[in-house]
Amino acid sequence: MKLTKQDIQQSTAKVYDTIVVGGGAGGLSAGIYLQRYLLDTLIIDKGKARSFWMQELHNYLGLPPDTPGRSLLRQGKEHYLSLGGDLLDAYEEEIFDEGETLTVGVKVGRTKSKYHTFRTKYLIAASGIIDYLPALDNMRNVYDYAGYNLHVCLICDGYEMADKKVGVFASSAANAEVIFPLGWFTNDITLFTQGLFEVNEDLRGKLETRGYQVESTPIKQLVGQEHQMTGVELIDERVVELETGLISMGSQYHSTYLDKFDLEKQGNNLVTDKMARTSHKRIFAIGDLKVGLNQVVIAVADGALAATQIWRDVRQRIPHYTKSA
Amino acid sequence: MKLTKQDIQQSTAKVYDTIVVGGGAGGLSAGIYLQRYLLDTLIIDKGKARSFWMQELHNYLGLPPDTPGRSLLRQGKEHYLSLGGDLLDAYEEEIFDEGETLTVGVKVGRTKSKYHTFRTKYLIAASGIIDYLPALDNMRNVYDYAGYNLHVCLICDGYEMADKKVGVFASSAANAEVIFPLGWFTNDITLFTQGLFEVNEDLRGKLETRGYQVESTPIKQLVGQEHQMTGVELIDERVVELETGLISMGSQYHSTYLDKFDLEKQGNNLVTDKMARTSHKRIFAIGDLKVGLNQVVIAVADGALAATQIWRDVRQRIPHYTKSA
Repeated sequence: MKLTKQDIQQSTAKVYDTIVVGGGAGGLSAGIYLQRYLLDTLIIDKGKARSFWMQELHNYLGLPPDTPGRSLLRQGKEHYLSLGGDLLDAYEEEIFDEGETLTVGVKVGRTKSKYHTFRTKYLIAASGIIDYLPALDNMRNVYDYAGYNLHVCLICDGYEMADKKVGVFASSAANAEVIFPLGWFTNDITLFTQGLFEVNEDLRGKLETRGYQVESTPIKQLVGQEHQMTGVELIDERVVELETGLISMGSQYHSTYLDKFDLEKQGNNLVTDKMARTSHKRIFAIGDLKVGLNQVVIAVADGALAATQIWRDVRQRIPHYTKSA
Repeated sequence: MKLTKQDIQQSTAKVYDTIVVGGGAGGLSAGIYLQRYLLDTLIIDKGKARSFWMQELHNYLGLPPDTPGRSLLRQGKEHYLSLGGDLLDAYEEEIFDEGETLTVGVKVGRTKSKYHTFRTKYLIAASGIIDYLPALDNMRNVYDYAGYNLHVCLICDGYEMADKKVGVFASSAANAEVIFPLGWFTNDITLFTQGLFEVNEDLRGKLETRGYQVESTPIKQLVGQEHQMTGVELIDERVVELETGLISMGSQYHSTYLDKFDLEKQGNNLVTDKMARTSHKRIFAIGDLKVGLNQVVIAVADGALAATQIWRDVRQRIPHYTKSA
C-alpha cells in the first residue's frame, strides 16, 4: 500500500525482504516480481523517473507506440500495489550496512520533512539517471520541447530524426561523439557547443569529412510552438532552423547514497553480474545505473533478474515463505 | 508488410539486414528495434509462440495483469508492421552459411506448400521452446486446462499456486526437482510420475521430509470444468483432488535448423554474449533458446540487445543507412 505517515511507524519496525530505491520502470518491474515471489517489498520513490517525461514510448513491446512514459509508470504502480507491495514517496538519504541487514534512511515530505529509517535484507538500486539539459536563462523554454521533438536518447529516437535537420547540443568533445551514430539516420547535423568546449582538430576533421556544421555561439533560446522546436536563436540573434534536436550533455547519476560502499564501477556505471548483483552481495543495481543499454525494456528485464536472484538467495535459507504480520 | 505469395518473389531477390526466426515476444521486440534502426527486417513466424496460449500475463510491466499473451503478440505485430517490417507465415527449414550472408530456406503454406529462400546479413533465432504436456489419450482434455490453472512456469505462476493443493506432473527425476522451489509457495504438493520414472531413495527421502506425496499410477484424465482443473482421475479410477497444477515434462527446442552450425551450448540452451550473439558472428539467439530465465520481459530485452548489436555491426561498415528499394 501507499504508506501514509500513520503507516510509517509500523513499517520502520519490521525487516523488509527488499527495499527498491526508485519507482521507475526497473524498480516497478522488480517490485512486481518480488511481490509475486511473496517477498515483502518497499519501493521508495521520489517521482522523478526518466521515463516520466517521455511523451511517447516508441519501442516497448505490447504498448501502442504513442504511449506516454507516465502511462507505463501509472499502470506499473497500480499493478505493484495490487500485489500488496509498499510504496513510499520519499528521498533516499543514506544506507547503513549491518551485515545481515541494511538500514535505509529517508526524508519524508517536502516541507517539514521527517527522517525515518527502514530495514531490509536486500537493496535494489533503481534510482537511475537524469539527463543534463542545455542551461538557458529560461529553462521553461527547454522543458517546452524536451521529450517531444527534442530528444535525449539516440537509440530510442534516432528513427524520429531520420533524414531531418538535427541540432546536437553537447557539453564536451566526448559527448559530441554521439553525432557519428546519429549520422546513420541523417546527414544534416549541426553541433552546438555553446562555447562550452573546444572542437579539436581531430573531431573537426571528422565533422568536416561528413559535412556536419559546428556552431559555437551560445544559445539565447529555442524557437518553436506547441512543443515542436523549429530552431535555435543564438545570443547574436542569428536563428538556425532545425527540424529536431538531440541533447548529449551527460547525465546525473542518482546513486550518491551508494558511494560509501565503493562498489565496482566502469566509468560512472555500476558493474553487475548476470543477475544484476553489484560487488556487494546484498545490493543489486538495475536500469540506467548499471553498465549496459539505457532502455526501458532492459530496466524491466533487470528488475526480473534481480528479484529472481534475491528470491533464490532467500530460499536457500528458508525453504517456505512465511506470511508477514 | 505481411508477405503474400505475390510479394515473395520480390523479397527473395534482395538481401535483408536481418531475418528473425520466430514471431513471439522476443522476435517482435527485435523486429521493432531493427526497423527503428532503419534495418530491413523479415520475421518468419509459424504462429506458435509459447506466450500465445498464456491466458494471463501477470508480470509484464505496463499491461494489466490479466492481459492474455495473444494480446501482447497482436499489439507487437501491429507495431512491427507499422514500422514497415516484413512478416511471413512459414516454417523455417534450413540455413546455409555463405560467409557474408546467410540463406534461409522456408516452406510456405500448410497444404501444397512451396519452398522459398531468403538472404540476410544477420539471423536472430527467436523460435523458442514449447513445453511437453502430459500425454493422455485425450489431449483435448489437457488443453482444456493448460495455461489456465494448469501452469508450466513456476517463476510466472508460483504466486497463483500459493497455499494451494498442487499436482506436479513430471517426466523424470530431474524435472521433478521443480517441487523444491515450488515448496516456497505451498506445502501441499503431490508428485505424479505416471510410472514414467523411478523415484530414487534420495528424492523420496527429500519428498518425505517435506511431507509431499507421490502418486505413480498413470493418469486417465484431468477433472474439472470451465478451464479450472479440480483434480486428476487415475487409470484405477481413484480421483486425487487438486486446486492447481504445474507441468514439468521438459521442453522441445525449436532450433534444429541451427544444429549444423555446432553453436556453443550449455545443456540445451545456446550460449550468448552480453548482446545475445552466439558463437557464430552472424547468428544471435534470444528468449527461451538461450541460457537464462524463460520470461517474456527477458526475451523482449534480448530483442533490443541483439538488434542494437546488429546495428552497431552494420554501422561499422556503412556510416549512413541507404533507403531500401
